Amino acid sequence: MAEQLYYESFERMEQFMTDAFTAIGVPAEEAKTCAAVLIESDKRGIDSHGVGRFKPIYIDRINEGIQQVNTQFEVVREGKTTAVVDGHDGMGHVIGVRSMQMAIDKAKEYGMGMVAVRNSTHYGIAGYYAIMAANAGMIGITGTNARPSIAPTFGVENMLGTNPITFGMPTDEDFPFVLDCATSITQRGKIEHYDRIGKQMPVGWVIDSNGDPVTDPGAALKGFNTGSCALAPLGGIGEELAGYKGYGYATVVEILSAALQAGSFLKALGGTGEDGGKRPYHLGHFFIAIDINAFIDVDEFKKTAGEILRQLRSSDKAQGQQHIYTAGEKEYLAYLERRETGIPLNAQVRKSLGDVRDQLGIDFQFVWEE
Amino acid sequence: MAEQLYYESFERMEQFMTDAFTAIGVPAEEAKTCAAVLIESDKRGIDSHGVGRFKPIYIDRINEGIQQVNTQFEVVREGKTTAVVDGHDGMGHVIGVRSMQMAIDKAKEYGMGMVAVRNSTHYGIAGYYAIMAANAGMIGITGTNARPSIAPTFGVENMLGTNPITFGMPTDEDFPFVLDCATSITQRGKIEHYDRIGKQMPVGWVIDSNGDPVTDPGAALKGFNTGSCALAPLGGIGEELAGYKGYGYATVVEILSAALQAGSFLKALGGTGEDGGKRPYHLGHFFIAIDINAFIDVDEFKKTAGEILRQLRSSDKAQGQQHIYTAGEKEYLAYLERRETGIPLNAQVRKSLGDVRDQLGIDFQFVWEE
Repeated sequence: MAEQLYYESFERMEQFMTDAFTAIGVPAEEAKTCAAVLIESDKRGIDSHGVGRFKPIYIDRINEGIQQVNTQFEVVREGKTTAVVDGHDGMGHVIGVRSMQMAIDKAKEYGMGMVAVRNSTHYGIAGYYAIMAANAGMIGITGTNARPSIAPTFGVENMLGTNPITFGMPTDEDFPFVLDCATSITQRGKIEHYDRIGKQMPVGWVIDSNGDPVTDPGAALKGFNTGSCALAPLGGIGEELAGYKGYGYATVVEILSAALQAGSFLKALGGTGEDGGKRPYHLGHFFIAIDINAFIDVDEFKKTAGEILRQLRSSDKAQGQQHIYTAGEKEYLAYLERRETGIPLNAQVRKSLGDVRDQLGIDFQFVWEE
Repeated sequence: MAEQLYYESFERMEQFMTDAFTAIGVPAEEAKTCAAVLIESDKRGIDSHGVGRFKPIYIDRINEGIQQVNTQFEVVREGKTTAVVDGHDGMGHVIGVRSMQMAIDKAKEYGMGMVAVRNSTHYGIAGYYAIMAANAGMIGITGTNARPSIAPTFGVENMLGTNPITFGMPTDEDFPFVLDCATSITQRGKIEHYDRIGKQMPVGWVIDSNGDPVTDPGAALKGFNTGSCALAPLGGIGEELAGYKGYGYATVVEILSAALQAGSFLKALGGTGEDGGKRPYHLGHFFIAIDINAFIDVDEFKKTAGEILRQLRSSDKAQGQQHIYTAGEKEYLAYLERRETGIPLNAQVRKSLGDVRDQLGIDFQFVWEE
């Protein structure tokens, strides 16, 4: 069964989030940054990381006192191309944008730059930061740990975050190459969507505490909360389809998000203290910028990259398939569509936005209230 | 049915390959480098990239004139942290070792280093170069393109190489963390093994020209040669289990292996000219070194990394499973075993080694000839 949806424009939703962040105490310029990162997710069709997460992941955590509205961005150590940053549980988007900008600035001077961050909070779509680098004529790489949800190959316990490792690169096309995905097959947001529309999940996405597949999304979501279900890594359950590779990538991200910056990792990222109360997530990220111009003329890079993507798209298709996509293309197509239609908002998201508005006393009327 | 195997020691096989490379014209020191990289693969239990590939991938190609025994390592452009190298179809192992060493040297001075290579040849296991960095107290990242074999998601044509993206990091354990794997689910070497032992492949590894799964390894190998079969990316066929992610990682590697260095890509890496004759592969690689010491004391990094791996291994296991592995662990266990037993050599490999010995007139008696 289809969900009832209402649509709001990019501009209105960005303004609403800016106003709400400002009202809850985020400094005005930083509120704009946070809203810009969040709305980019909706623009790109990534419903799991935009307005839909605005209340539960940001506003609620600020209210719970586990995320700080004033971001203390402390550079703990700095080298020519490198830096370690402590985010002191501030706003992840602000920390992310400043860190990637540092990496870009270093790369401009030295050819490469990398910033490792500890004690941050959810930084939204990783792709935002990779695109920052691509827009600066650079290769951008970023990753982040997250609350534990993936089980290792042959394991059943949620140990690793969905740990994206994300790449952005400029091309000569209308949009950059951006590979921005979890190292699990799927993630909670998609399972919640399956649950809402009453659809069974494919075998391989989720395992139970025996290691057997779970296909009922409601059971999976319940199991995540009690610890009796976990996500399978990219490549699936066991070794047959090479699940150890996705598990390996997730581990790479876990190490890079903690070991360079003396940060937290694995179960310590659960967001719950020993007393069962909520506590800061203390997330870690890393940001790498590589200045293409240090290797080759940027336009030549863009042309080669674009040519690779065009040749992939024009290669022979499987029976019944009309279109081979390249990374970032579906997101660009979503952007073109949503620029016209606005952002689709389901009942759950609409309620959460209304609740934020009412709590913070913002003057805003949503389209579904007209 | 099991294969009949004979065993040779690391030392004897490394010596044999060194002698053979020298006999065919590779300068003595460089012959040692090539043999060292190849034997590392056998030591780590990766039979697809060691002595088994010695004749077809190196000796034969030298004989065919598409790979040069004298490696002309030309630094085309160099910056503080960056370099572009042209390998002029020389020995891939020599090019790889020198390039990663350059990246390490730059990282020692600036914190990071990256070298992009064009016109190289097969460089063996990517893990070798990542381990070089790890042994220098650094994070090593490397990747390479390869002759086309993976089909894009929704496609059926072999377009992308098995394109590994490989990470090496030091830990406080007896062996480094090394994730060294293709971005396809599997690769040709494993399918050849299935073919030899008469075992069917799982659904998802290989597709035919309709996009349907192929499970007979013989049919798959034949199809690779005629272009009617292709490997599926990590994540499998279509989007259900997120095959677009593996396809995306393979594309990242394809771009990084060509666009920074004005190198060849995709179908141009097929090794066949328009006249159907053999021609150089013109492979591209990239090598990144990140100096951990620029961020944090190396011992502290190693401890955190080791702790992450130990916690993963000691997490709850699936029913019937005794051991959760971390990347590089199985390879280390293989090393411990093979240090005692030697390297297992099947009939096909034994024949190829004998042929090389006879062609080059090397004085060497294999154990199976005693």
